[in-house]
Amino acid sequence: MKITAAQLNFHVGNFDRNVKLICETIRSARAEGSDLVVFSELSVPGYPPHDLLEQREFIEKCYQNLEVIATECKGIAALVGAPSFNEAPAGKRLYNSAFFLNEGRIADIFHKSLLPTYDIFDEFRYFEPLKEYRILKYRNKKIAVTICEDLWDEQGFDNDFSSSRLYTVSPMDELARLGPDIIINLSASPFSATRVEEKRRIFTEKAAKHRLPLFVVNQVGGNAELIFEGGSMVVDPSGKIYDWLESFTEQVRTYDLSEVIKGASKDFVFGKDHIPLIHDALILGIKDYFGKMNFKSALLGLSGGIDSAVALCLAAEALGNNNMRVLLLPSMYSSGHSVTDAVKLAENLGVHYDIINISDSFNSIRESLHTIMKDYSEDATGENIQARLRSILLMALSNKFGNILLSTSNKSEAAVGYSTLYGDMSGGLSVLGDVYKSDVYRLAGYINRKKEIIPGNIITKPPSAELRPHQQDTDTLPEYQILDEILYQYIELQRSPGKINGKGITGDTIKKVISMINLNEFKRFQAPPVLRISSKAFGYGRRMPLVAKY
Amino acid sequence: MKITAAQLNFHVGNFDRNVKLICETIRSARAEGSDLVVFSELSVPGYPPHDLLEQREFIEKCYQNLEVIATECKGIAALVGAPSFNEAPAGKRLYNSAFFLNEGRIADIFHKSLLPTYDIFDEFRYFEPLKEYRILKYRNKKIAVTICEDLWDEQGFDNDFSSSRLYTVSPMDELARLGPDIIINLSASPFSATRVEEKRRIFTEKAAKHRLPLFVVNQVGGNAELIFEGGSMVVDPSGKIYDWLESFTEQVRTYDLSEVIKGASKDFVFGKDHIPLIHDALILGIKDYFGKMNFKSALLGLSGGIDSAVALCLAAEALGNNNMRVLLLPSMYSSGHSVTDAVKLAENLGVHYDIINISDSFNSIRESLHTIMKDYSEDATGENIQARLRSILLMALSNKFGNILLSTSNKSEAAVGYSTLYGDMSGGLSVLGDVYKSDVYRLAGYINRKKEIIPGNIITKPPSAELRPHQQDTDTLPEYQILDEILYQYIELQRSPGKINGKGITGDTIKKVISMINLNEFKRFQAPPVLRISSKAFGYGRRMPLVAKY
Repeated sequence: MKITAAQLNFHVGNFDRNVKLICETIRSARAEGSDLVVFSELSVPGYPPHDLLEQREFIEKCYQNLEVIATECKGIAALVGAPSFNEAPAGKRLYNSAFFLNEGRIADIFHKSLLPTYDIFDEFRYFEPLKEYRILKYRNKKIAVTICEDLWDEQGFDNDFSSSRLYTVSPMDELARLGPDIIINLSASPFSATRVEEKRRIFTEKAAKHRLPLFVVNQVGGNAELIFEGGSMVVDPSGKIYDWLESFTEQVRTYDLSEVIKGASKDFVFGKDHIPLIHDALILGIKDYFGKMNFKSALLGLSGGIDSAVALCLAAEALGNNNMRVLLLPSMYSSGHSVTDAVKLAENLGVHYDIINISDSFNSIRESLHTIMKDYSEDATGENIQARLRSILLMALSNKFGNILLSTSNKSEAAVGYSTLYGDMSGGLSVLGDVYKSDVYRLAGYINRKKEIIPGNIITKPPSAELRPHQQDTDTLPEYQILDEILYQYIELQRSPGKINGKGITGDTIKKVISMINLNEFKRFQAPPVLRISSKAFGYGRRMPLVAKY
Repeated sequence: MKITAAQLNFHVGNFDRNVKLICETIRSARAEGSDLVVFSELSVPGYPPHDLLEQREFIEKCYQNLEVIATECKGIAALVGAPSFNEAPAGKRLYNSAFFLNEGRIADIFHKSLLPTYDIFDEFRYFEPLKEYRILKYRNKKIAVTICEDLWDEQGFDNDFSSSRLYTVSPMDELARLGPDIIINLSASPFSATRVEEKRRIFTEKAAKHRLPLFVVNQVGGNAELIFEGGSMVVDPSGKIYDWLESFTEQVRTYDLSEVIKGASKDFVFGKDHIPLIHDALILGIKDYFGKMNFKSALLGLSGGIDSAVALCLAAEALGNNNMRVLLLPSMYSSGHSVTDAVKLAENLGVHYDIINISDSFNSIRESLHTIMKDYSEDATGENIQARLRSILLMALSNKFGNILLSTSNKSEAAVGYSTLYGDMSGGLSVLGDVYKSDVYRLAGYINRKKEIIPGNIITKPPSAELRPHQQDTDTLPEYQILDEILYQYIELQRSPGKINGKGITGDTIKKVISMINLNEFKRFQAPPVLRISSKAFGYGRRMPLVAKY
């Protein structure tokens, strides 16, 4: 038997695109002599469809499109992900299902058992879990059809809360009793830089435990905040990786099952450095945000600092230099090198830039406030006016020319509120909102790996918001190395303050940082969508109460 | 037996406040000779604690505080809501529980069975459902302890998706087998103007079905977007309301169980008009947002239009006239009556106002954009600059004086994107973001019910954003009466476009409106928290994909 793994880039709700992709893939697989094509979870509507799943017509469209796909399945079968109606008199109205299409029709349906409802996942909001397990019989093979989380039953909790398991059932243990020959898994598992090794471990251990060949097909592509890396894999019955599909790109490959059962003949070596992965993930995230929203060009404010420099390089690579434009918006507080560094970067990339000095408009606004703020002194009020005035000018260009504004704030700033709401937080998409400042520097190094694109001075000078004379970030914040370590342990590892530790970290700093994180929940509430590359990003996956004391 | 219903206003994470309230209530109930005090769901941490439930120390604080409360329970018992650890080796790490405190200790624990995971509810994110039912025995009475949703098993789905039931279990059917004498329900059920009658129906039918007295204790108070109305009630075994606690205020009342069993002696008549409820809910929502965030004073831009007028009246009533200030920010496009109407309103209320004409700063910004936008013509770009410039000035005052900016956009505008991101959408809280324009007018009428506070001209003149000469809302939008009917059916009833109908509604208008709703998802993504008064508000409870085609 030949099995084709189809790692494709789906667009939520874009049935025409998704179905075309699926049908074309089935046709070419048939030409290759494949018996079965496996697509990813909810491939027909795209993942995650969120509350579109609450619209009857949306589900009906899925069924209509399944019928279209089924007509392609002659002489070849397909496993395609889509929601299905729960016909029982009670329970959630839908299942998250794998449709088995064969002989021109929907031949069978298998439902997902484990419904992730944590972090960015809300599956119990929509779906009823499967409770009775069945096996797919096709061309003399017994296939255990599983969907994503169904293989993740043995994962522990994420934090130091408990070491117990999240699920009370193990779908593969149940299915194993039915004597399958193969495990197939339809996935939509988003990228998180620190979880790549864990995913491989889960799949290889699962195959080894059941001594069965395993085919995992994951979605690839960006859908708003979420970036799916693909990285689909085939594991042999000993738990060794037989093959895997390159990440961050569409890949379709056909395997001879008997070869997979014989076992892997080579060793795959995976790099340990997360930075190239984050780099590629962000580029895919930007590219798909624009492509799927039908936007072409972007815009950002280039300050001469490291964040906007890195964001620009990523966006220019994702969208093309010709589709980027930047504004330099110096004020009386900007240092000379800010403008020259920024100009040099724009010229290195060949990106169109304009310079608008904001001093006059800033003074005009201050003037108009004079009678009310008689005791006006330079404080955060004035700093925020500058940041917001820049946002007005950037958004004016966006409104006039259609370039989408990118926010260039990083995760460290977002965490402690070192950014201005309606100012530098503005934008349709936050490129670096899940990247700690230390990793922004690493990304800059990676971008410059072949030649200096980002001028060295941008990387080496001390970070400053330049909103008042001689300002430096460290006037207000701990050194980024220390700050980022505290943030990582508190946000991603969800450690209690008392358990956070590391070189140079004191109890006072922990207290100060955590208090800043908590106090700035209200700002992040209004932040743009953040491209998620960690296991815990701000936004949808981290739901803190806004009006609370803690 | 005497039972005390304690409808109190809890603050998420504010253990000192919550525990003080609980302990004081237990002491006064004991003085009244009560046997049992019932508090609302998750009363110890406050509802909803969201992801604070993922922090071990937060749960441990709940336990520590339960011990403190238990020491008050001598000669009297209490049912208090708090999370409890799930000690099983697998499953979600917590239960949503009712702790029975008696004789100075935690005497028993009962868990919630039905975990709402839809709209604004995410309970399956945190909690394991109860599967084995038990009864509480106390002073010769058998008590069925249920938590909120546990009594809602017979509700249908919200939309035309299906008429089947959401849950496969009925906790009260299970508990009824154990022969209880009383049903008690600890609730945290947020206000929704159109659901008030339904709640009463659910409780009275449940009591009647089981022929048992029912005590429902609901939380009261605002917690960010969510407003809990209280409206706790006691139902006699025939299903008649024996008594209920006034909405939107803290209430504690003790009942003699034997009297309740004898039956209600009077009929309660409830008004049908939702407007007074919405009015009171919004005032409580504003008051608690400020009180619980430790903010005192607010600020808004008073345009002379109906939305800012109504928002001001509500905020002034919630916070006190002395704690409000307003800015009038006319431009060259503002009509004379805008300023005079706004001034008259501010004077009627005795609220401090300032006037800043934005024309100079607006011109200065246009000037600075001139070289880039050589072909500059008056279009949405200029309109947005005005709205954003107003936001800069308002936020400057907020930063300088500490007044929190209120956004005054209504739900109709938010739906179709008739507002400027980083402009009039700015603010810490959106007062009217869940109120349709038609209801804003009704609220204005209600505010003026005793005397004219809002000048008549504000109510009668045609709505206009005044961002260009002679602009009126109807240049861009359908009449609000028609718009609001389409919005209500699409958003709240979740009707398919083809099923939306009503007087004057055409297929073209439906198509246009729904397309505007879908296209403006990106704006609402960055909107401030919205006080929720409907069954489906924008924000947390409506999770639409951002990058999708539909």
